[in-house]
Amino acid sequence: MARVVVDVMLKPEILDPQGQAVQRALPRLGFQGISDVRQGKRFELEVDGPVDEAALARIHDLAESFLANTVIEDFTIRVEEVAEAAK
Amino acid sequence: MARVVVDVMLKPEILDPQGQAVQRALPRLGFQGISDVRQGKRFELEVDGPVDEAALARIHDLAESFLANTVIEDFTIRVEEVAEAAK
Repeated sequence: MARVVVDVMLKPEILDPQGQAVQRALPRLGFQGISDVRQGKRFELEVDGPVDEAALARIHDLAESFLANTVIEDFTIRVEEVAEAAK
Repeated sequence: MARVVVDVMLKPEILDPQGQAVQRALPRLGFQGISDVRQGKRFELEVDGPVDEAALARIHDLAESFLANTVIEDFTIRVEEVAEAAK
C-alpha cells in the first residue's frame, strides 16, 4: 500500500476567481503580505501493491483523463508515503 | 517571495463523498488497484518577504481560521519554493 498524491491546479494563465476571492479577503481579515492565492484540488490515492513505473504510468493516465481538465489545469503526481507494515 | 502551500483534507473519520465517487468510478473506467481516494483542497500562497517563523505562525492562524474548517478538516503547511531572484 502506498499513498500517491495528485495535485491539480489551474494553469498560471487561467484566471482563478476562487483564489482571488481568498486573496482579496485577507487584508480585510487582518492578514497582510500575501500577494497571490491560487486554489486547486488535491487527490490522495491509496494504491494497492507496489508503486512502480507501471503503476505511476497508470496514475498519470488517470489524472490526465479524469482528475484534471488538461485544457485549463496542470497536475503533478508524487508518491507520499509507503506503509511498510501494510505490505 | 516564497510559495507556501496549505493542504486542507477532510479528517480521516469524516466521510468523503467526492473522493468515494471518484474511487467507485475508477474500475468502471478501467483503473484497478486503487482502494481509496480522498479529495481535498490545495492553496498556494505567494508570500511577500521572508518566510520566517512569524510569517508561518500568521499563515497557520490564517489556515486555521479561514482556509480550513477545523471541525471536520485537517491542514498541513509547507514552504514549497523560494524564488531567490525575486527577493
